[in-house]
This record gives sequence, structure tokens and C-alpha cells, in this order.
Amino acid sequence: MVTKPQPGSIVKIKTQKETLQGTLLESPDSKVILLKLSSGYNIGIKKKDIKQIKTIKKPEKQNEIKQINKLEKKQELKNIALIVVGGTISSKLDSTTGAVKWLTNPNELLKFYPEIKDISNITKIEMPFMIASENMSYKHWKKIAKITQKLLNNTGIAGVIITAGTDFLHYISAALSFFLKNLNKPVVLTYSQRSSDRASSDARLNLICSAKVAISNISEVMLVGHSSINDDFCYAMLGTKVRKMHTSRRDAFKPINTKPIAKIWADKNKPIKILANNYRKRDNNKKVKLNIKFNENIALIKYYPGQKPDFLNNKYDGIILEGSGLGHLATKEAKYNWLPKLKKAIKSGTIICVTSQTIFGRVDPIVYSPGRQLAKTGVIHLGDMLSETAYIKLGWTLAQTKDPKKVKEIMLKNISKEFNPKLGIEFIN
Amino acid sequence: MVTKPQPGSIVKIKTQKETLQGTLLESPDSKVILLKLSSGYNIGIKKKDIKQIKTIKKPEKQNEIKQINKLEKKQELKNIALIVVGGTISSKLDSTTGAVKWLTNPNELLKFYPEIKDISNITKIEMPFMIASENMSYKHWKKIAKITQKLLNNTGIAGVIITAGTDFLHYISAALSFFLKNLNKPVVLTYSQRSSDRASSDARLNLICSAKVAISNISEVMLVGHSSINDDFCYAMLGTKVRKMHTSRRDAFKPINTKPIAKIWADKNKPIKILANNYRKRDNNKKVKLNIKFNENIALIKYYPGQKPDFLNNKYDGIILEGSGLGHLATKEAKYNWLPKLKKAIKSGTIICVTSQTIFGRVDPIVYSPGRQLAKTGVIHLGDMLSETAYIKLGWTLAQTKDPKKVKEIMLKNISKEFNPKLGIEFIN
Repeated sequence: MVTKPQPGSIVKIKTQKETLQGTLLESPDSKVILLKLSSGYNIGIKKKDIKQIKTIKKPEKQNEIKQINKLEKKQELKNIALIVVGGTISSKLDSTTGAVKWLTNPNELLKFYPEIKDISNITKIEMPFMIASENMSYKHWKKIAKITQKLLNNTGIAGVIITAGTDFLHYISAALSFFLKNLNKPVVLTYSQRSSDRASSDARLNLICSAKVAISNISEVMLVGHSSINDDFCYAMLGTKVRKMHTSRRDAFKPINTKPIAKIWADKNKPIKILANNYRKRDNNKKVKLNIKFNENIALIKYYPGQKPDFLNNKYDGIILEGSGLGHLATKEAKYNWLPKLKKAIKSGTIICVTSQTIFGRVDPIVYSPGRQLAKTGVIHLGDMLSETAYIKLGWTLAQTKDPKKVKEIMLKNISKEFNPKLGIEFIN
Repeated sequence: MVTKPQPGSIVKIKTQKETLQGTLLESPDSKVILLKLSSGYNIGIKKKDIKQIKTIKKPEKQNEIKQINKLEKKQELKNIALIVVGGTISSKLDSTTGAVKWLTNPNELLKFYPEIKDISNITKIEMPFMIASENMSYKHWKKIAKITQKLLNNTGIAGVIITAGTDFLHYISAALSFFLKNLNKPVVLTYSQRSSDRASSDARLNLICSAKVAISNISEVMLVGHSSINDDFCYAMLGTKVRKMHTSRRDAFKPINTKPIAKIWADKNKPIKILANNYRKRDNNKKVKLNIKFNENIALIKYYPGQKPDFLNNKYDGIILEGSGLGHLATKEAKYNWLPKLKKAIKSGTIICVTSQTIFGRVDPIVYSPGRQLAKTGVIHLGDMLSETAYIKLGWTLAQTKDPKKVKEIMLKNISKEFNPKLGIEFIN
């Protein structure tokens, strides 16, 4: 047993096997010492295994930047607006706990990354709330949509960048894709996987590329981020066809069942390379409208073998079922046959849609007999639509109508590029 | 409106826009005609859009191969056993419905793919049931494990191949990884995405490569299948670290958070290339034992923003929660704060484990404040373990003990390579 030096200190720890150096963190487990290594990873070491612990450097006092600096403006550059709602990109390391905490002033972000000011003037910064993306829900998405609409309809602003948490950033991008009607300018969501105060942060490239996209001619809701683990270029990805696919890599987001819209390099003079040809073009004269209602009485359920269909007892207005590859669920041969319960729920007015848990590809109920049995219950198979996008679209649709025929019609209509028509999904269903 | 020719017929259909030729299928929707194109895709055409429909060829009568042929045996080859439990690989197209149906005789498979007999003698074929993998659950996995054990302990057999449905094949591979103790020989699961009677079927390469792995020195539970959409080579992937990642591509399965164990070419003379160095080696003298008990009172829940923690009202013995990237769930700032309910459930004896819905990477509750709050409730974060593998492992563990400390110890122990120690998961928790 050893006594602990102060969290935030840089310490050297000797165990029987090795010697480790790093920043000491507050540990939630009293039997374990937590160390943040220079690689950025945290490791836990059992106290009983520690032979020696030596303080190399005591913790530094952190100075907060308190004042909001006047936003600079260069005549030759276009103006963009920034909405800051949390996430690692808006945070810095707290050296005592090893956890990250919010920047207290969004201008700090621009201080860390001044390059963005060579591409565009940030003339507005909005910071309605700071919250982890997994804790957001409809009320937050609605607020972001309203602020975005206002900024887009400001003739002095060329585009909007939203920085938020990565974990459920694709829910925010899907929500904005349906909430913002008659889009006129680029709406860019971006993130980082390392807090902005870290030299190795991926925020730099993501912010530079986001600014380039925000002043471009692509009028879509997009997520912009690293294309690979290298800091060379980003992709702009459709807000309805993107998903976080890695817990911590800088290229965590991948376009699903479609190509990226564009490739963007950090060099401000190197033009964006367009990869898709079906994007909407900027039209500064258009006015963005909102279609912002949402029915929150919905659920997203991932199917697993042996599952009881108990959730059907809850009175949801709609359910997205993440079925097997081609969109199957338990039928007669399974331990629990779902078909009678699905039929009953659909008859009583619940809308039930099916997506695929393989993520890539599209559901197709026609190929196999269990799929056909399932299709007969009245479930709606959603082609290549992502489960997360489907969840947002279903809540949005059920706020407009509860007529099952109309709901089906809207769910199968390609409203915000949530279907890739090249996958041929538009025929079946 | 047109009248329909007999399903199974080859027809030519003219609409205002185009002319299409294909096999007419039975349609579940009376307003739509279904056609299987030569590409293998089905398309639906609304009857009202059809100008003309012409029968090119009437349906052929299908001859079933009824007799079981004597299994051939070549002196110079090793003997392997085949377990057939369903899936596309064990099916052929029914030309009247366009759906696929089971082969009535497993020998048909070998007739379609005689090459496998140049690599090994198939001296035993077991066919305990034919069922889609999404309809399987513990009782099926148990049966497969028992048959596999018996075959592995037969000194005349070098290895076992199991052909099954793709959709939940990774559940079968995970179950066998925990159920079979003291493994002595290769256990190979394989599949196809196109039925075996189709010239374009991926069954050929998968079966040839599986046979090569079944006679190899790798004594692991593995899934063998296409490495890419080309028919050039397969990967052998660890049964606990593999997942179906595409609905229909031949390379649907991907190793997750680890490398493939081996690369296998179709050429029977080209040796397997080993990519991993931590695999178990064949030991024909070892006897396989079973550890086959399973607690089915468990659930797998995917978290989404705005979710109510209602499922905690059900009295599950254990739950796998597929959380955000780093393994977060709703905390105080969310619409529904899960923390008090999680604490209560854990206090009452429910084991709650957390995995990541990004699939790639590993959960880490220490980085952010919501993760720390969550860790304090007593949930168990499962590093880089796949949700599907975690589900199987939890059911298996809870059949051995209900002591929360012991359950945690087993869940965090690397029993069947379900953790990749290189990702550093073994310290934290």
C-alpha cells in the first residue's frame, strides 16, 4: 500500500513488472490508482501491485479565460455562425480528475484554432446549452433547429457550423435534416475525439474543413470529420446517412450505404472535391422554414435471438425494430413467435418499421419465407435507412399524421436522402 | 390491369418507361407484380403501370434429389464432419415463389461443390434441424454444441464444419466459444449469401476455405468466409470477435477489434497464411468437455436518446446495455435520468453490463463525467467486447453463479478471446 499524491500531479509508478509515468487522476475505485499516460489513454493499477510512487511535478493551477473577446472580421472573407452545444470539441482536460470539462467561453475554441479565421469570419456564436449528446433529446434538437433556422435566414451569414458531442451527433444531424425545410445554405455538424486543449486534438482539421464546407455551395445538413486516422483530409457526409462507428478514432464517423458528398483538405486554397452529384445547391434567396413537431412516444428496439416481444405491451405510437440482416424477426419456429403480437399491435394502430442491425446494406423481406411472413403482419421495411435516422423520421412523421397509410407513405418517401435510390429500395414495400 | 401468368414463368413486362424480363414470383401485395431479375434482385412493379406482360417460358418442374449417396473416402485425405442446420447455404431457389427453400438432402451441397472432396473426406453429416438463425435460441445452440463435442472427440475426425444462416451466425459462434471447453480441433462455421444452386453462389469459396481450416492446426471456434466481394480468398475470424456487417454482401462478416486469424485461398495446394499468433494449436489427444448451462432470463438493450428505462421493471437476471461510444447512458441532464433506476436494479441483484453501439473500439467510463456517474452505479463496462458476444457470455455466466462479485470476475476475465488485450481493457473496471 502507498499513499496517494495529489490528483493532477505527474507521477512515476513502479510495479514489479514495469515503471509507468503519467498524470495522476481521481480514481472511482479506492483499490486502484488511475494514471493518464502521455498517449492519452488512462490505465488503472492495483494499489497492491505498486512498489513505489514518486511525484515528478505538482499540479498546475488552471487559468480560465473569462472575457468574451470581440469577434474579428476581415472584409474579404465570408461570415459564418457557430452553434456550440457541448461535446469534447468544446471541452478541455481537468488535470485533477483526468475527465474533461466544458470550455467556459466558446471563444477559447477559436483561440486554440485561429486558422479558422483565415477561411471565414465567425460573426456569431450561440451557446444555448452545454450537454453531452447522449443526454439530448427532442427539446434540444428543436432548440438547435430553431437557432439554425434564424442564422440561415440572416442574409449576412453564409453557413452554420454546429459543434456537439460525438456519441449521438448522428441523431442531431438526422433531426436537423427533417426539421429544416427549404434549406438554403450549408449546415455543418462537427466534433472532436480529443479535447480542444490537447496538441493532438482532431478539432483543428475538423474545424478548418467545416469552415470550408460552411462557405461552399453545398446546401445540405452534413457531418464533417476526419476521413481516416491521418490528419490529411475530411469528408462531408449526409446528415441522414452517417453513423458513429468507432468509440475513439478520429475518423469515427462513416457514411453508410452511400458515398461522402465531398472531400476537404486543410489547405485553405485547395478547393473542395465534390464526390456526389445529387446535392442541393446554395440559394441565398430561399428562406428556411421549420417542420419541427415530434412524437416522442416511440421506441427503437434491437432484436436478439430468444427475445420476448414484451415491449409491445407498452403503448408506443411507433417502433423501429432493428431486425436481422434482411430485416427478419422471430417467426413461428422461434422460442417466442412475434407474428401474432405484431399483428395485434399494428391492428391497434402502432406503426412498426424494420431496419437492419448489420448497419450496411438494405432490408428485403421478400427473399426468405420468415421475411414474407413478417411482411404480411403489416410492418414497414425501411430499405437501407439507418435505424437512428429511422427513429428520428418516425417521431417526426407521427407528429404530422397518425393515419397508418399516410405514415407508411411518408416513411417510404425519400425526403432527406435517407434512402439511397441506387440500392433499388424504392420499388418494394 | 393485366392477368397474371403462373409464378415461376419467365416473363417480359412492358411499362411506359421500360421493358423488364425475369422470373415471375408470388407477390404478397395484390397490386404489385414481383419479378426476379437475372441479377438476382427482386423488383416490384405496380400492376397499374404495366402495359403488357408476355410469358417467355413456363415454369419447370423441379426434381428433388431424394436418396442419400454413400459418402466417398480417399485414403490420402483427412476426414472431417459437417453439421447442417439451415441457412442460405443449405437452400435452393423455389422458382414459383422466388423465395429459397431448404435442401432436402445435405449431400446436395456436396454435389454442387465437389471441390471440397479434393481437400478432405466428409465422413459424417449431421442435420439435427433446419432453421433460420434468427429463430434459433439456447436450445439450438446447445444441440449444436453437443453434436460438435461428440464429433471432435471422435479420433477419426480432424475438424468440424457447421453451415448455418448468416443473420445470427455470430451468436452461434459465440455460444460454441463458451460452451466447448478444452477445445482440441478446428470448429468452423460457414455460410453463403446466395443459395447453393446459383452459379454466383459464394458457397463454393467459403466451403473450400472452411475445409482447409477444418484440417489445419488452428484449434479455435472460427467463422470462415469471404474477405472481400471478390472470390479470391477467405478469412478465418474468431468466433467471439466477429459480426455480420452487411445484409447481403459475400464479405458480410468482419472481425471486430482484432485481426483475422488466417487468410485462406481456394487453391488446395496454397497453404493457409496465419495472421494472428495467439491461437490455440490442435491437440488430437485432448478431450472436449461441455460447459453448456445458460440463463435465458437476460436481455440486450440498445440505448437511444430520450429512452425511458422501462425495461428495468422486468425482472431480468442480467442485461447487456448497448450504450454510447464510450459506454454512456442517460444521466441527470437527460429527459429520463437512468442512474437511480440502475442503482436500484443492481442493488436488487440484476447484473448490468455496458457495451458500445459504435461496434468498433472499446467503452471507457473514466474519460467523461457522465461515464463516471454511471460507473458508480455498479454497472460493468465490457471493454471492447461485442454486444452479441456479451449477451451469450452473460447468459452462460449467470448459469454458473448469481453472486455479483463472481459474475463480474467472470465477465471481465478473457475466457475465449472475447477481449483484445492489446486494446488495454484488462486494467480498468
